[in-house]
Amino acid sequence: MLMTESTPLHTRLYDTMIQRIRSGEWRQGERVPSEKELAEEFGTSRGPVRQALAALRAEGMIVGGRGAPPRVNRAVPLQSFDTFMSFTEWARDLGYTPGQRVIEAARRPATEEVARELEIDMDEQVVEIIRLRLLDGEPAMLERSLFPFRIGRHLISADLDNGSIYQNMRALNISPVRARHVIDAVAAHQLDAEWLRVPVGGPLLRVRRVSFDQNGDVLESSDDRYLPSMATFVVENSSEHRTPLTRAVVGAAPEGLSALP
Amino acid sequence: MLMTESTPLHTRLYDTMIQRIRSGEWRQGERVPSEKELAEEFGTSRGPVRQALAALRAEGMIVGGRGAPPRVNRAVPLQSFDTFMSFTEWARDLGYTPGQRVIEAARRPATEEVARELEIDMDEQVVEIIRLRLLDGEPAMLERSLFPFRIGRHLISADLDNGSIYQNMRALNISPVRARHVIDAVAAHQLDAEWLRVPVGGPLLRVRRVSFDQNGDVLESSDDRYLPSMATFVVENSSEHRTPLTRAVVGAAPEGLSALP
Repeated sequence: MLMTESTPLHTRLYDTMIQRIRSGEWRQGERVPSEKELAEEFGTSRGPVRQALAALRAEGMIVGGRGAPPRVNRAVPLQSFDTFMSFTEWARDLGYTPGQRVIEAARRPATEEVARELEIDMDEQVVEIIRLRLLDGEPAMLERSLFPFRIGRHLISADLDNGSIYQNMRALNISPVRARHVIDAVAAHQLDAEWLRVPVGGPLLRVRRVSFDQNGDVLESSDDRYLPSMATFVVENSSEHRTPLTRAVVGAAPEGLSALP
Repeated sequence: MLMTESTPLHTRLYDTMIQRIRSGEWRQGERVPSEKELAEEFGTSRGPVRQALAALRAEGMIVGGRGAPPRVNRAVPLQSFDTFMSFTEWARDLGYTPGQRVIEAARRPATEEVARELEIDMDEQVVEIIRLRLLDGEPAMLERSLFPFRIGRHLISADLDNGSIYQNMRALNISPVRARHVIDAVAAHQLDAEWLRVPVGGPLLRVRRVSFDQNGDVLESSDDRYLPSMATFVVENSSEHRTPLTRAVVGAAPEGLSALP
């Protein structure tokens, strides 16, 4: 393809790299050269190389990066249950440094909606933990998790600034074995806007998750709001396999069915 | 759970129905009573029943509705490749009447970015088709599809207001066999806002898709923007299976890598 002088450098680098992946010059599973090596090869600074690699990662063509060696990934991989469930494990798996900041950890009686989400009785105690999640120190996602008190009481006293709730739960032998995730887009509310540094009303990628233990009891109900510039979901399908992701119709959904503001 | 007088009627109906599903009173795969039957049973008008059913559909707890009989769906089903690929087949499968309105169908030379998306040379002809997609007559999604001219020339002359591009392609023996979908959230641009009747800058659920034929050639590159009130993506996973959906890190992605404005 013809590239012109006016094409931004990172776009030209992206193009060169994606052609290497598509042509097989960079092979599936193979390690991608480091930012430093690429910058040297292309005779450029590392900024545009990093931008081009970020775009390839966003499309799932490269996995890993920064800490872990980035690898070519023509085929979208399956993520392990733990990697998909845990922000911390996910970030580490991809070579990022996960971080978090607890905004609020509170216990209170369940409202009607929270009670329904957690399949408990109204006015039973629940624990709500709101955390800002970081990737390499940058705000990436605002997470609001609700736990029945029998689970949450172990978490509210833990060192939430240093460690994964998911790992905490597993250490307590409380393990989700199944979860349902609903992905949509949502307008940023005041709290989202403040912590994720976006305008109120701006787009966020939302994942609502309910996870269950082996008895089918609800362990957690969570509302995760990602900065769209930080995360995407990628799925690959083929005519040989049914698609593991369901596109559902909302239609005219009533307001206020979510447990979270 | 305690329900109060002040609880909106549709929420109480939703609650009753989800308890029937969870308790197994309404069994997996079983037909849900009609709106009319439910309205009679609960002694209410059909509006709140419809709202409650819509919420259950949004969560994937009920599939179908309206035209097709709605069925209980505790476990999220896999969607067939065709149902996932084709808006028309998806809508029909769920009991909705699909509709469309062609906003623009044009041929033009590929820009650099379009050429990269379609893996063709710059300045080769491409066909771009922009359509508003409807569910039961309501705007649901704005779809911008790009085709290499060898494919697009068959489509630009077809009756696009009546029928599925996907079905048109299959009739021509042009069949995608594999596709990659990237899901994220995006702010509505002017064109989105106008056709989907949302404010500029408001949240839309975006799916970017590239589909391939059996030779690995790109058939189509598409940018679908859903009203968040109309569609969600639902995935269920468990510790026994790897998650078929990859959450990818975007990081600091450069601007302007999408083929579409």
